[in-house]
Amino acid sequence: MSFRVYLSGEIHTDWREQIISGCSSMDIIFSSPVTDHGASDDCGVDILGSEPNKFWHDHKGAKINAIRTRKAISDADIVIVRFGEKYKQWNAAFDAGYASALGKSLIIMHSAEHQHALKEVDAVALAVVETPEEIVRIMNYVMNGTLL
Amino acid sequence: MSFRVYLSGEIHTDWREQIISGCSSMDIIFSSPVTDHGASDDCGVDILGSEPNKFWHDHKGAKINAIRTRKAISDADIVIVRFGEKYKQWNAAFDAGYASALGKSLIIMHSAEHQHALKEVDAVALAVVETPEEIVRIMNYVMNGTLL
Amino acid sequence: MSFRVYLSGEIHTDWREQIISGCSSMDIIFSSPVTDHGASDDCGVDILGSEPNKFWHDHKGAKINAIRTRKAISDADIVIVRFGEKYKQWNAAFDAGYASALGKSLIIMHSAEHQHALKEVDAVALAVVETPEEIVRIMNYVMNGTLL
Amino acid sequence: MSFRVYLSGEIHTDWREQIISGCSSMDIIFSSPVTDHGASDDCGVDILGSEPNKFWHDHKGAKINAIRTRKAISDADIVIVRFGEKYKQWNAAFDAGYASALGKSLIIMHSAEHQHALKEVDAVALAVVETPEEIVRIMNYVMNGTLL
Amino acid sequence: MSFRVYLSGEIHTDWREQIISGCSSMDIIFSSPVTDHGASDDCGVDILGSEPNKFWHDHKGAKINAIRTRKAISDADIVIVRFGEKYKQWNAAFDAGYASALGKSLIIMHSAEHQHALKEVDAVALAVVETPEEIVRIMNYVMNGTLL
Amino acid sequence: MSFRVYLSGEIHTDWREQIISGCSSMDIIFSSPVTDHGASDDCGVDILGSEPNKFWHDHKGAKINAIRTRKAISDADIVIVRFGEKYKQWNAAFDAGYASALGKSLIIMHSAEHQHALKEVDAVALAVVETPEEIVRIMNYVMNGTLL
Amino acid sequence: MSFRVYLSGEIHTDWREQIISGCSSMDIIFSSPVTDHGASDDCGVDILGSEPNKFWHDHKGAKINAIRTRKAISDADIVIVRFGEKYKQWNAAFDAGYASALGKSLIIMHSAEHQHALKEVDAVALAVVETPEEIVRIMNYVMNGTLL
Amino acid sequence: MSFRVYLSGEIHTDWREQIISGCSSMDIIFSSPVTDHGASDDCGVDILGSEPNKFWHDHKGAKINAIRTRKAISDADIVIVRFGEKYKQWNAAFDAGYASALGKSLIIMHSAEHQHALKEVDAVALAVVETPEEIVRIMNYVMNGTLL
Repeated sequence: MSFRVYLSGEIHTDWREQIISGCSSMDIIFSSPVTDHGASDDCGVDILGSEPNKFWHDHKGAKINAIRTRKAISDADIVIVRFGEKYKQWNAAFDAGYASALGKSLIIMHSAEHQHALKEVDAVALAVVETPEEIVRIMNYVMNGTLL
Repeated sequence: MSFRVYLSGEIHTDWREQIISGCSSMDIIFSSPVTDHGASDDCGVDILGSEPNKFWHDHKGAKINAIRTRKAISDADIVIVRFGEKYKQWNAAFDAGYASALGKSLIIMHSAEHQHALKEVDAVALAVVETPEEIVRIMNYVMNGTLL
Repeated sequence: MSFRVYLSGEIHTDWREQIISGCSSMDIIFSSPVTDHGASDDCGVDILGSEPNKFWHDHKGAKINAIRTRKAISDADIVIVRFGEKYKQWNAAFDAGYASALGKSLIIMHSAEHQHALKEVDAVALAVVETPEEIVRIMNYVMNGTLL
Repeated sequence: MSFRVYLSGEIHTDWREQIISGCSSMDIIFSSPVTDHGASDDCGVDILGSEPNKFWHDHKGAKINAIRTRKAISDADIVIVRFGEKYKQWNAAFDAGYASALGKSLIIMHSAEHQHALKEVDAVALAVVETPEEIVRIMNYVMNGTLL
Repeated sequence: MSFRVYLSGEIHTDWREQIISGCSSMDIIFSSPVTDHGASDDCGVDILGSEPNKFWHDHKGAKINAIRTRKAISDADIVIVRFGEKYKQWNAAFDAGYASALGKSLIIMHSAEHQHALKEVDAVALAVVETPEEIVRIMNYVMNGTLL
Repeated sequence: MSFRVYLSGEIHTDWREQIISGCSSMDIIFSSPVTDHGASDDCGVDILGSEPNKFWHDHKGAKINAIRTRKAISDADIVIVRFGEKYKQWNAAFDAGYASALGKSLIIMHSAEHQHALKEVDAVALAVVETPEEIVRIMNYVMNGTLL
Repeated sequence: MSFRVYLSGEIHTDWREQIISGCSSMDIIFSSPVTDHGASDDCGVDILGSEPNKFWHDHKGAKINAIRTRKAISDADIVIVRFGEKYKQWNAAFDAGYASALGKSLIIMHSAEHQHALKEVDAVALAVVETPEEIVRIMNYVMNGTLL
Repeated sequence: MSFRVYLSGEIHTDWREQIISGCSSMDIIFSSPVTDHGASDDCGVDILGSEPNKFWHDHKGAKINAIRTRKAISDADIVIVRFGEKYKQWNAAFDAGYASALGKSLIIMHSAEHQHALKEVDAVALAVVETPEEIVRIMNYVMNGTLL
């Protein structure tokens, strides 16, 4: 059994590396958005030309990033979305909604503090976790049928 | 030409009433989530029995609300999502992602302040507006072909 | 807001009538399988000719019943499945699986006794209830936004 | 020609091993749910934390198991569902309904005793069998075109 | 409960009229291909200009007829296909395959003589009948739940 | 039998009026893009604010127009696309491709002069015509089965 | 570029071998139904037990054959259907309809004699041919862009 | 991460070679229509027999070309469409519409001169570029997350 897993959301901590490292012995292909914040923000104008208006500056970048994220979500069996402590993170919630409508298995990761605000997102998840370790254990169980 | 429009997001101002009133002469069927905050939060435990754990309290409510919102989004031609000034509003972004994956036409309403944080959501919208008046003018143009 | 609701499962008590009666003031179109047990079992051979082998006797009937149930499930916004106290009721669980794969909103009704055996079915439901009254209250909330 | 086959249902006898062994020379990728009963029941609380209420205990586990079974059913060309002599086995009937709605080829295995109770499930199957040997012969015929 | 039924196949006897007349008290919308043989054969060249080559003569007509038949099959809940005693009737079998892939409920009508030649078509039908009367009885049972 | 027909393409002659008038006795609901050239070009900036860059000026307008055209094409049974004598008319060809991928029945109208350039578009059409009169005759045949 | 091609229809001549041999240097995976006439007719009763009624004898066999043919058609990029000189060949026309509804590219092969009877099937084909050589040339052109 | 990219449109300059060469170190599978103009125009009559009427001459060729292009667009993650300086290029706009309806990521390449005429096509693109170099940079960013 092999899985494709997309890691969406917060880009300021090393949660992706912890999951990928913890699952290194499993047959999983991981994908992620571009996590270089500067490149992600400026890719549009850097490649396609500058924009005086911030709206179009961001618009061009968001669309180029969508080429990667749409493909990765469409290909995924599981979409894991992490909500961090800061920022609005509306793109993370957007990804969760998008993945849900495509019928992907969702795992949501956040601290207890955000529980109430994320209740609609959690309600469609197959698991709600707080730590990367829980995700590693879920993936191991799902793929190997054993509880580490 | 008739349209079905779902009004998602912020529930603390009267933006829905402004749009519905402004479009009263057009052949549009509007739908919304339950906007009574207390009922929306407690419907699960009120009907299905109380839960000592807040997570399951919210879980039961979020799922009952989903019976209404899924139906309304699926039936809609256009999904309008308003992001207000306060709160995380992750359910609004989730609805936007869900509607986008279903191929619905999206209109996003928010103040300039949230422009950068909403860039991925705005990038899939067919219009990004700040006021209900703009939405009324869009609906009039789309349905009647005239610029009021 | 109007809904189409399919009432699947147990046919030996009047739970359907209780729900339909309790929702009489709401804009809901209900549908059900044929609940006349004898007609349901024998429709195949009665119309298409007798079969010496019980397997084909049942096969002919099950397929004619499927003309009605497939249409009703496909048209439904909500599928309510009741598991009664007796019998295997595999067709009820089959309907739940079928409806789930089509993305329908599921409400499951059963007594506490069957909780463990129905855990996979309950896990995809948007509400798990024990009584018709709970369903009437859910439908009222979903359609009118009020908690009776 | 290669096939993907999902083996759903009863976990107390070695029917899966008999089929896999009988088909060992064919180009088939088999998948199954987790068949360790204890792990399957407790995976949710073991990984995500205990629950005082049995409903949520089971709910958490059923959802984690769904990550594996949904993927396996979605990927399958053929879904084989075995109903054993005991228990309600509603998850087996649910899987059959789910697979049917996705258009998968279904093979159902059960003893003659359950024929009438399974008539709706049998009616959508492409073959109804009693033994693993029959399934091995079907797979050989389907893949090689010969009758062993 | 209302149904849409498409009547495909043989155009030389009055089987359509018998069914429509027998179901006159039921809420069914029937549709059919154009059954005027001459118009059906010549519609292409009559409207779009003559063709010296019979292949293109027929091609133009078949495509114009497809505007009607595709719409009618797509809209139908049930597709009834009758195979008569004469001719190749490949378009009838084509319609059956087309409807089957769209998940429509199929009823096939033919005399015993064609049983072996139609086994693949019959195998996907929910009922195989010989007479219009049987179809009237099926529709009455499916819609009213009674065996006339 | 009733049809929904979308009239795409050239906006400088009265071909739409000729078709609608010729079909006035038939049960057809026609829809069209906004055909007021000025409004169509400027709707974006008129409602959402001016843009110094012509690309974004047009971008805003094209997206608002898409709210109408996507809905109309999705709802249509038949999409009729007329290519006129002048201009690039890439939006007409785009609509034809879009409608084709959605499985709509296509009718293409153009003069003989454009035959070679439109060969890929014509190849997916169910009819290729030169005049509105031919379309009126096709619609009459498709709906009434008679050749006027 | 690689293709999957399903070869449906007539089983009494060596047209499949001619095509496979002619395309031996191309990256094509061919599939076919079981072409051993006796095995194809009797697989159902041979594996699942005899039936006194010919209808169920054929029914069991047709369903087991469907496990193979549905998978092969679903996986195919191109479905080639040959109509031979004899027999009703309704399963060939059924396959063509089934493949057409799934959006597969169809190539139809038959002699001129059957042109009129096959006009509806030919009308959805991307090529209508008389000989295996034409198909080899089409496949070479489609894959290599050259006219042998 | 690997991508499949279809290169549609203008065939008179070496833009395809520039992109393929610039992306040679990336894991991309490129596909294209047949770009030999003569073969593309005449493949139909060359293989299937000559036609006195130019319409059917082109019709046969366009359909054989569609076997290749449909497959390539369906398989693609990204469809890049280039509009050149000359000709109507309606097939390019048709491909863009077709790809858009299938949910493919679109990149459109054209000179500034065609901006207004292509506004509806540009409006659905995730990037609008003028040169192959921009596309190489986009692909590098999308796949590697770096801005060359």
